[in-house]
Amino acid sequence: MDAPARPLVVLAGGVGAARFLQGVVSVWPSEQVIVISNVGDDTEIYGLHVSPDIDIVAYTLAGMVDAAKGFGLLHDSFDVVESLARYGEETWFRLGDRDLATCLFRTNQLRAGRPLSAITAVIAHALGLDLTILPVTDAPLRTLVETPGGRLSFQEYFVKRRTEDEVLGMHFEGAAQASPAPGVLDAIERARAILIAPSNPFVSIDPILAVPGIREALIATAAPIVAVSPIVGGEALKGPAAKMFRSLGKEASAAGVAAHYHGLVQTLVIDALDRSLAAAIRPTGMRVAITDTIMRGPRQKADLARAALEAAGIPTLLQPAR
Amino acid sequence: MDAPARPLVVLAGGVGAARFLQGVVSVWPSEQVIVISNVGDDTEIYGLHVSPDIDIVAYTLAGMVDAAKGFGLLHDSFDVVESLARYGEETWFRLGDRDLATCLFRTNQLRAGRPLSAITAVIAHALGLDLTILPVTDAPLRTLVETPGGRLSFQEYFVKRRTEDEVLGMHFEGAAQASPAPGVLDAIERARAILIAPSNPFVSIDPILAVPGIREALIATAAPIVAVSPIVGGEALKGPAAKMFRSLGKEASAAGVAAHYHGLVQTLVIDALDRSLAAAIRPTGMRVAITDTIMRGPRQKADLARAALEAAGIPTLLQPAR
Repeated sequence: MDAPARPLVVLAGGVGAARFLQGVVSVWPSEQVIVISNVGDDTEIYGLHVSPDIDIVAYTLAGMVDAAKGFGLLHDSFDVVESLARYGEETWFRLGDRDLATCLFRTNQLRAGRPLSAITAVIAHALGLDLTILPVTDAPLRTLVETPGGRLSFQEYFVKRRTEDEVLGMHFEGAAQASPAPGVLDAIERARAILIAPSNPFVSIDPILAVPGIREALIATAAPIVAVSPIVGGEALKGPAAKMFRSLGKEASAAGVAAHYHGLVQTLVIDALDRSLAAAIRPTGMRVAITDTIMRGPRQKADLARAALEAAGIPTLLQPAR
Repeated sequence: MDAPARPLVVLAGGVGAARFLQGVVSVWPSEQVIVISNVGDDTEIYGLHVSPDIDIVAYTLAGMVDAAKGFGLLHDSFDVVESLARYGEETWFRLGDRDLATCLFRTNQLRAGRPLSAITAVIAHALGLDLTILPVTDAPLRTLVETPGGRLSFQEYFVKRRTEDEVLGMHFEGAAQASPAPGVLDAIERARAILIAPSNPFVSIDPILAVPGIREALIATAAPIVAVSPIVGGEALKGPAAKMFRSLGKEASAAGVAAHYHGLVQTLVIDALDRSLAAAIRPTGMRVAITDTIMRGPRQKADLARAALEAAGIPTLLQPAR
């Protein structure tokens, strides 16, 4: 009997990670891919447990995402949220009806005492996915954004206030008491390679690293760790990452990303536009791989995934042709 | 300053009560009508608090009900429930999306510690109603139906198993610990008249009477109490009432209804079809009013309401022309 294949592990936030993962599963058997998902964006909306990063990844890989909007389900309706408005509920978080069904199922199962990781497995299976999505932890972990006006929940900062506040820092509430969800440490230990998706380092990846045991496992694993820079030409392709770098007094560039992941990541994949930054990064001891990182379509997503795998030393020849 | 008008109080279950109330508010100022609603049918569906009797009354009076189906909202969609099915949830309770929004709002407010009566007031107001709907109690009170196979929740008996089980009795779980919601006893005490809607005596009205203090208040009030028989020609116009009478070894007729309400009700309104039963009822001391009780349309609903008011001794001349 063959030993189970060593997994390809991807640390993932939301939209950027979801698109990157589309590339990954187009060049690698998806049943060998384990996504370790951020849960710092999780929140309660209308009393429902929303897991935006888990869901955007699941919906995207299931081919059901509303790609134009960047979240939620394609052709979803909004009857529930519109009716809630009638009762005076704040409806700045526009949860579609089918998306709400996912959250209602999750909430109901959580109240019945099931862990988020087990519920996520049911959802992923129901959506027809054969990759594994693991929330980094089953414990409540919430990213709070420190702003001049006080701490905001991530969704307040991101959706309600449209990332307009200056960011002074992050606080990962509950992280110190959290422990990795079942399978997370094992995946990191056994991984053939670990890829950090082009997600926001501060609010997508750092909350994963904030769970006690994760950073240590990443440092201890024999697997190569490759990150894809979410900053290209000084700007984030999506979301507030570049603004956060600047707001936190850091360099909003691939070099800033390299500095952020220093000591954790062996290779950083940067965009060809940022080629000139390689000379500044390499002396820190981090390897640099240069490719086109802007994921315009399926072809570019697959190419980026291949580049990341190559940067992890996985020979392209081994990759199944698809 | 005028004293507030003495209210017209209606004890109400679901569909039959909702239709009767349409008649009542067509002949009496709705802001002077107080509905005391059964909550024994309340249940948790998908983790949401469903109050079927409150909602059917509110939706019906707001002109939003799906009259053909007898519950839920007209033109509602079912995206949430269909998506839940995908995750393996049992979906025998087909809650429409907009209907679900009402339940989600209620659940969220209950979890925030607000009482059902206050939440019901917000919902009724949002739906544009100016009558008052009071749940008989803010405490959990659940009707369990005793069957040869064991106790069933009311919705299991009614929706899932389509009233097919033999009924041996009812148990009103939580009733002994319940107390009337704010305003309920006051309404009964101050009422100009109390009408018992043509609802199922066993599962719509009895759970109201099971709340300690209600029966005593009804016996003590100076207001006349008039019930409308839900049984016509030996059959219930809607639902399992007649079957329950027989199953419980009682007479499924207006006379059976009279016996059930003996000692509480001064006048029973029965259908002209049941005219011959009046002679059997009157010797028990209960007055009988005979009219057409089948509510085919707005005209019959108004006529039935007028007949009930007249039976309560409220001169028709006082009724505002509408």
